[in-house]
Amino acid sequence: MKSVEYQPGLEGVVAAETEISYLDVEAEEIVVRGYDLLDLAQKRTYPEVAFLLLHGRLPGPEEAEAFAQGLLQAPVPEAVFAILGLLPPEMHPMDRLRTLLSALGGFEEAGQKADAEADLRAGPRLIGQAAILVANLLRTQPRRPKPELGFAGAFLEMITEKVPGEAEARAFDQLLIAYSEHELPNSTFAARVIASTLADLYGAVTGAVASLKGPLHGGANEAVMEMFLEAETPEGLERLVRERLARKERIMGFGHRVYMRRMDPRAALMKEVLREMAPGNPRAARYLEVAERGERVMREEKGLYPNLDYYAAPVLYALGVPVPLYTPIFLAARTAGLVAHVVEQHAHNRLFRPRVLYKGPRGLKA
Amino acid sequence: MKSVEYQPGLEGVVAAETEISYLDVEAEEIVVRGYDLLDLAQKRTYPEVAFLLLHGRLPGPEEAEAFAQGLLQAPVPEAVFAILGLLPPEMHPMDRLRTLLSALGGFEEAGQKADAEADLRAGPRLIGQAAILVANLLRTQPRRPKPELGFAGAFLEMITEKVPGEAEARAFDQLLIAYSEHELPNSTFAARVIASTLADLYGAVTGAVASLKGPLHGGANEAVMEMFLEAETPEGLERLVRERLARKERIMGFGHRVYMRRMDPRAALMKEVLREMAPGNPRAARYLEVAERGERVMREEKGLYPNLDYYAAPVLYALGVPVPLYTPIFLAARTAGLVAHVVEQHAHNRLFRPRVLYKGPRGLKA
Repeated sequence: MKSVEYQPGLEGVVAAETEISYLDVEAEEIVVRGYDLLDLAQKRTYPEVAFLLLHGRLPGPEEAEAFAQGLLQAPVPEAVFAILGLLPPEMHPMDRLRTLLSALGGFEEAGQKADAEADLRAGPRLIGQAAILVANLLRTQPRRPKPELGFAGAFLEMITEKVPGEAEARAFDQLLIAYSEHELPNSTFAARVIASTLADLYGAVTGAVASLKGPLHGGANEAVMEMFLEAETPEGLERLVRERLARKERIMGFGHRVYMRRMDPRAALMKEVLREMAPGNPRAARYLEVAERGERVMREEKGLYPNLDYYAAPVLYALGVPVPLYTPIFLAARTAGLVAHVVEQHAHNRLFRPRVLYKGPRGLKA
Repeated sequence: MKSVEYQPGLEGVVAAETEISYLDVEAEEIVVRGYDLLDLAQKRTYPEVAFLLLHGRLPGPEEAEAFAQGLLQAPVPEAVFAILGLLPPEMHPMDRLRTLLSALGGFEEAGQKADAEADLRAGPRLIGQAAILVANLLRTQPRRPKPELGFAGAFLEMITEKVPGEAEARAFDQLLIAYSEHELPNSTFAARVIASTLADLYGAVTGAVASLKGPLHGGANEAVMEMFLEAETPEGLERLVRERLARKERIMGFGHRVYMRRMDPRAALMKEVLREMAPGNPRAARYLEVAERGERVMREEKGLYPNLDYYAAPVLYALGVPVPLYTPIFLAARTAGLVAHVVEQHAHNRLFRPRVLYKGPRGLKA
């Protein structure tokens, strides 16, 4: 064994070479296929960014339109919805999604065949399927997408059952871009680890769903909104945050292993989106004020800055999305990034198989 | 970022501290909770080894009996079998198992709550549930265990629908021990990565099933048996191996990243089990001869030694187990080790979040 010093949680350890994305901590930039993610979120749509993630280049206008329409035509077999009906009502939405994406693999070519080309063919289907499943996790009768609303609009309409205005659809679109890709967080790493046995795309993404459920990862956006709803007002949140800090409890939505010193650029983007919605949307106006108070208290008391989840949560709330769908929506948006990573892993594979430091006993006799 | 040299596949990189197991390459010993796994396989039963993995000590005789009976009383809700009925007939058995274990989490306390105590309470149930699900993956009407046959006997009877003789049940028991735990292979690593977000036990094990499906990991035992069945005779296998080597194809069942120089001690154990079965079992006799010929050719031609899968495959064949269940049985046996690792991860958690080496472009404008 090579003697590499043990880094708990592999902190700072390089686990993959990639051409997909990179968190440039010095420049405070999320690099995605060479572009600044924030620049993409301001100028492009989610389907364009998904195309970029999969193919390594931005699409032309006609390609973009065809790709977006393709996402919405993804088939989800009735049997998969029938499985949803058999799951217990108290089951966590992420556990439902994990089960349904796993089941879906049985109906798909890319569920049987693990190679980069099959993954790439499957990618747009899987992005669409994830959105359709996520939008229906809390329903018994599935609602299908209305393609004329565009991808973000149709996704949001399936969730809220209301045709969104243009500004709302664009806010949701920007949120999907913000969540689309982020280097090698736990869920993406889990997907690459699984894919490296030459397991299939659906299995790798199922593992990512399992990871993203955890409160230290995707679960944070729901915890943030629950805190805001409990607090109700800026004063309420300030009191609640100070009480929790006094009890040395963790405040969700702050800090991130990779950005230590400054605000997550995606959080700044979502704060701006919330600010734009505020004049015409009382929920956006109220929770912008609430969130800003919490941001100030945490900066003063702990020197910590908000992460994406902190401002994405009130944006989703202002859009009328039920809180239990926040983490599933994170996953649906991230599917584009996950597919890109599985394609890359399968194209340049090396099995992940690390070692341990053994601290137990030796020499016992059975 | 700390500048640690990039090791593809994290080869030789320590990713966890553990008191569960260790592959001592120098001593050629698989250390499990301080015991030699081979010593355990010769003197103990699978439920005793599972108890050891979960609790860190061997059980007394009464504890062992109670633990073994408890495994067989694990409940599997009818709804989970109903889901099995909705999956397409061509779906890979490991993908069915992945889906069913994920669904099962919705019915379990440990599917909702991620802490070491809940995991430990759930462990024996999950080991039993995995065996019951695996035995029924190819059926529409579930067969339930007969507790009077003991754990290995009841598991084997659910698969073959024949009450096994004592020697057969013991051979299967030893095979389950051989597969029960093996440090940090890809599937165990995937489970720990997922568990580190404080995701639940069922999610972590679902990720391990996804990983183990891959042909570079659990899929190898099935590939070995298919090769033996194609070869039919020792001469047939020698011809087949030499042809594949000439075409520079990989021969499944040889080599392992961690044991490079000698035979996997578990392979030696399974070879001995096969030899003991041979006098009364024509399949064991035939495929012992076939396997030995392949072993000799590979040693002479490539200097490679068999791994566990190479001799476990003909043992399973001699026991009448259908080939598509070989990898699922590996998973069922490994569940004990997986639970132990998830308990340990949840008890001493640090989120896995490594970094990347970015090789893509920079500075593009959206």
